[in-house]
Amino acid sequence: MLKDSLMEADAAAAPSSSLRRWEAIAAALRDDITAGRFQPGQCLPNETALAARFGVNRHTLRQAVRSLADSGFVRVVQGRGTFVRELVLDYALQRRTRLTQNLADCGEQASRELRSAQQQPAGGWAAALRLTARQKVEVLQTRATVRGRVIGLSTCAFPLPRFAGMAAAFAETGSVTESLRRFGVSDYTRARSIVSCRMPSAVEADALARPATAPVLVVDYLNVDAEGRPVEAGMTLFASDAVQLSVVPDDFAGE
Amino acid sequence: MLKDSLMEADAAAAPSSSLRRWEAIAAALRDDITAGRFQPGQCLPNETALAARFGVNRHTLRQAVRSLADSGFVRVVQGRGTFVRELVLDYALQRRTRLTQNLADCGEQASRELRSAQQQPAGGWAAALRLTARQKVEVLQTRATVRGRVIGLSTCAFPLPRFAGMAAAFAETGSVTESLRRFGVSDYTRARSIVSCRMPSAVEADALARPATAPVLVVDYLNVDAEGRPVEAGMTLFASDAVQLSVVPDDFAGE
Repeated sequence: MLKDSLMEADAAAAPSSSLRRWEAIAAALRDDITAGRFQPGQCLPNETALAARFGVNRHTLRQAVRSLADSGFVRVVQGRGTFVRELVLDYALQRRTRLTQNLADCGEQASRELRSAQQQPAGGWAAALRLTARQKVEVLQTRATVRGRVIGLSTCAFPLPRFAGMAAAFAETGSVTESLRRFGVSDYTRARSIVSCRMPSAVEADALARPATAPVLVVDYLNVDAEGRPVEAGMTLFASDAVQLSVVPDDFAGE
Repeated sequence: MLKDSLMEADAAAAPSSSLRRWEAIAAALRDDITAGRFQPGQCLPNETALAARFGVNRHTLRQAVRSLADSGFVRVVQGRGTFVRELVLDYALQRRTRLTQNLADCGEQASRELRSAQQQPAGGWAAALRLTARQKVEVLQTRATVRGRVIGLSTCAFPLPRFAGMAAAFAETGSVTESLRRFGVSDYTRARSIVSCRMPSAVEADALARPATAPVLVVDYLNVDAEGRPVEAGMTLFASDAVQLSVVPDDFAGE
């Protein structure tokens, strides 16, 4: 206790030089949430218990909880307690559908990692990409994460030879938009999205870090360049507890 | 056999006065499918067995199967057999989203029945409909069926007093579009759709005639009239084995 009190005094004396005490507590609780030690919907321990755990007074603890509420990690219900919020992202299916930008519009920072890549015959992607089944595509498997939670898995096919080296570009930029720009595609639009839902396979559930009993939203899509040529065909699986899709016509979008 | 052969001869002699033999067989098989006696994905008994069941030659049987294939009930895979097709409807989320018209565009005839109706405070519908929570709405519960299979359940709220009598109008017309027209709404557009997926409740699964282990697509939507005033807020649950949603920007829709 003495040590914690000293730390609080330290933090108050030097607020800008290091993390303030309530910020450190908020970070610790945020880690508990993103690591799943506190699950969505779960009620946090009460103020007295949390204050004791961190060795701070209730004022400092409340400041930490308030910052978590402001950033959407928890929801304070008067008289009932503080609950871990479900992460529900509003993903817009629109003319320019950009994963990273879409999540930024929700106030979230997404990171997107390359899980695997390979060159293969277009096969099932051929019709959408206007290739023959034997022409080749570069296929990327990517995974998107928000606040430490996986929210989606994508399998994206890019026509070859036009986009040879796409995997390397994505590995470097973490962004399809940035990578396409390197190939001279300054703009692209979503020609169509087909939305369905199903149960995930065991492998998919594992990659999403979700139980196999939780359904997934499936978006099959096609992106085309300014001349209407297909640049990317793909399928994204979204974790249904984290993502919902919004479809708003252009002339309502400004409202 | 003799009787069936006579019936065949009769049918051939009078093709326009009654159902031809192959048409009657197609109808019988269609009933088997829509009643679930043959399940989606299941292989029909082979030609010899079916021809024996209906007491016809294989030529007549093939004519029946071909008509079922043309209407999308079955799929003939050369060398493997005839399979009952999954009923997957492409439901367009677009500027003018009309259930009956959408399904007609898929070549399907939908029937929509009124299951219940009541007048109640707007509550959770208030914000979307720009009402106070205490202003009233008329809420309709409807169920849509295609080829004898339930494909969706809708709960639709219409602001009162503007749409007083909506339930009666729907009961008579089986169509929201037709009913709104009676209230002077000659056109309306979809302001937004929010798509998510989840497992159904036991009651919902029962109403959809699906197992509770099959996920549902959920579309929350708002329709507005030509002046932008909300006319209907609603939620539709679609059976995920029967419906997928397509989102195509207006300028690609003609392709």
